[in-house]
Amino acid sequence: MIKIAVLGYGTVGSGVVEVIGKNRDMVNKKAGEELEVKYILDLRDFPDDPYGDRVIHDFNVILEDEEIRIVCETMGGVGAAYQFTKQALSAGKSVCTSNKELVAAHGPELLALAKANRCNYLFEASVGGGIPIIRPLNYSLTAERIEAITGILNGTTNYILSKMENEGADYHTVLKEAQEKGYAERNPEADVEGHDACRKIAILSSLMTGKNVDSNKIYTEGITAIEPKDFEYARRMGMSIKLLALSREVGEKTLAMVSPFLIGGDHPLHMVNGVFNAVFVRGNMLGDSMYYGRGAGKLPTASAVVSDVIDCARHLGKVIMCFWDAEEADLMNIDEVERAFFFRVKAGEGEARARELFGDGLREVRLPGETEECGFVTQTMAELTFAERWEKLTGVTAGRRLRIEA
Amino acid sequence: MIKIAVLGYGTVGSGVVEVIGKNRDMVNKKAGEELEVKYILDLRDFPDDPYGDRVIHDFNVILEDEEIRIVCETMGGVGAAYQFTKQALSAGKSVCTSNKELVAAHGPELLALAKANRCNYLFEASVGGGIPIIRPLNYSLTAERIEAITGILNGTTNYILSKMENEGADYHTVLKEAQEKGYAERNPEADVEGHDACRKIAILSSLMTGKNVDSNKIYTEGITAIEPKDFEYARRMGMSIKLLALSREVGEKTLAMVSPFLIGGDHPLHMVNGVFNAVFVRGNMLGDSMYYGRGAGKLPTASAVVSDVIDCARHLGKVIMCFWDAEEADLMNIDEVERAFFFRVKAGEGEARARELFGDGLREVRLPGETEECGFVTQTMAELTFAERWEKLTGVTAGRRLRIEA
Repeated sequence: MIKIAVLGYGTVGSGVVEVIGKNRDMVNKKAGEELEVKYILDLRDFPDDPYGDRVIHDFNVILEDEEIRIVCETMGGVGAAYQFTKQALSAGKSVCTSNKELVAAHGPELLALAKANRCNYLFEASVGGGIPIIRPLNYSLTAERIEAITGILNGTTNYILSKMENEGADYHTVLKEAQEKGYAERNPEADVEGHDACRKIAILSSLMTGKNVDSNKIYTEGITAIEPKDFEYARRMGMSIKLLALSREVGEKTLAMVSPFLIGGDHPLHMVNGVFNAVFVRGNMLGDSMYYGRGAGKLPTASAVVSDVIDCARHLGKVIMCFWDAEEADLMNIDEVERAFFFRVKAGEGEARARELFGDGLREVRLPGETEECGFVTQTMAELTFAERWEKLTGVTAGRRLRIEA
Repeated sequence: MIKIAVLGYGTVGSGVVEVIGKNRDMVNKKAGEELEVKYILDLRDFPDDPYGDRVIHDFNVILEDEEIRIVCETMGGVGAAYQFTKQALSAGKSVCTSNKELVAAHGPELLALAKANRCNYLFEASVGGGIPIIRPLNYSLTAERIEAITGILNGTTNYILSKMENEGADYHTVLKEAQEKGYAERNPEADVEGHDACRKIAILSSLMTGKNVDSNKIYTEGITAIEPKDFEYARRMGMSIKLLALSREVGEKTLAMVSPFLIGGDHPLHMVNGVFNAVFVRGNMLGDSMYYGRGAGKLPTASAVVSDVIDCARHLGKVIMCFWDAEEADLMNIDEVERAFFFRVKAGEGEARARELFGDGLREVRLPGETEECGFVTQTMAELTFAERWEKLTGVTAGRRLRIEA
């Protein structure tokens, strides 16, 4: 029997206990041994919970109990979670986590600590919720040089954008509804400003490059400025608007960014709607592959944590391969990135100045019956070049500019 | 250094050698040791090939060379490939294969043989080409009870159906073109009659149930009877026609089948076009997830074989988890399966008799300007019930019947 401790009895933590309980036969068969949740660490008590008798308040009980071989860190944050993870790994206890913030901030250090203590730090649940993506990158696409990763990595923003697209509703109305339904947090900033997607692409970029991609250095733009009219133009062009987190190799450098993008109707990410997530991976031999599923939610996320627990159980005393060095990856300045852009200007003056600034390469996009404004798609150009010209349109613009993902 | 032998220097075999060569740094890093192709077994000689000096004609050289720890079986078929695989595994050499026919026919026996000899029999490339699906099922979705797998598992038929859909062309014209382009074999029977997809779903079903699903017992229907007019009706209903291979748990039994299906525009498999493949998996905790990519082709398939080689290299002397017993799974008779059907009848007499036989539940589907015939969608009903009524429409039908995947 292998004994486990769960840190934090919130949504994911209670899900972990539920998955191990409900799928007991399957989990034990795959683990090769019986798994038992011995402790649940939380500040609160849960007297009416069937597992209430396992709730403790002192982490040292877990740390000092040699029976505990695997710890699930489902607390979140980079404070106590960081300290507990370091202590557990130093004591040779493997840690499985859903905490993307901690993995993004201290991944290489915690992986090195695990290795030094012949145990494992696994984080399948930190990206894409229940979608297997960390393990496919680490164990399946091993014969590939990964050239690009493009993901819809945040369910809240994808839900909001899908809803805006389908109902023509504005951002604030949809956000409020999402908050009421529990799909968005009361303080939605981490989601809608792109910080959550940023941490996740930092993790995927690090695994792609084998070096550390610092999430603080990733250009990040959220969805708060997207308007219903943007979706009208998108539909007109047979496109959709998605918050994409992307990472790609450009020469010796790595481009990583998070931003809303227009994507075409034939792009596989186009059909990823609502709370679903997907990760699109391009390898130099395999070409394109995609991993799709529920990117959040209690049981999907818990299922991913438990798959890590099973992996740890099968590798007690052995270190599972993961290449993520502390060496900083060389990130590309996004000013140099070349792509096409969409923008909206006021009819008349705006149109005239846009044509003058951008020349012949502009493609006009008009909405039926719309006389106040007009949209344009540019040729492929550097971000900086576009930004300089866009700046010159101040006063005659009619909305935001959007990047286009080819 | 770990030495490898490749059996069969055809498309996939030469791809394996190419992937190991081109991605040498990555492959060796992931394998934890340098990999070297020492022998290539083929009946032919390749004097002008850069690896021509490694080509041999006698399998015993490989078998008797203790340096060879891993063998890639990329010959295909169930004759020599079966004998060589058994001999290699008996000698404690791991075998990695793309040979779905052999895996489907002798999987449990070969897995047991590998286990007894403390080596591994891996077959990631046997299903979905380069798409990681075997490893995600075996290592990632370990906390799940898998309830259903639905796949587009054959690139040739998906290419033909996509082309028929987009161009309104008939089956024979598109098949001929696919043969000229090399997307279909000169003898296309294994693909177009569904046998290839059948072997692949037999493998996935076996991994899903942990028991052996005999491909010979799987109901299999191909695409040769699909007509351009079927696509007109499909479009009218916002649907598409795909050759689906599916497996699901129904009570204590397993339903496995291969057949063309109408699927709705909001189903994620709807967007899987051309030579792409995808596998849709439903777990009891995770819900739906999907794995998408190139289901065939030299380098994608070879990449999957090499990922298996890397896995073997990292587990020399250890047995990698795979649950696929020799015990036969209890397959459900498809007569009992309940679903909705689409069918076409002649206008007038056919319509009248259809309404009489199927009653109020029928939904009519009319093509604009079509006066000769009419389509109907039934309510959910058992296959056998539908078949009995369909039989009674003999003489007034206007085309095939199609199953509908909800």
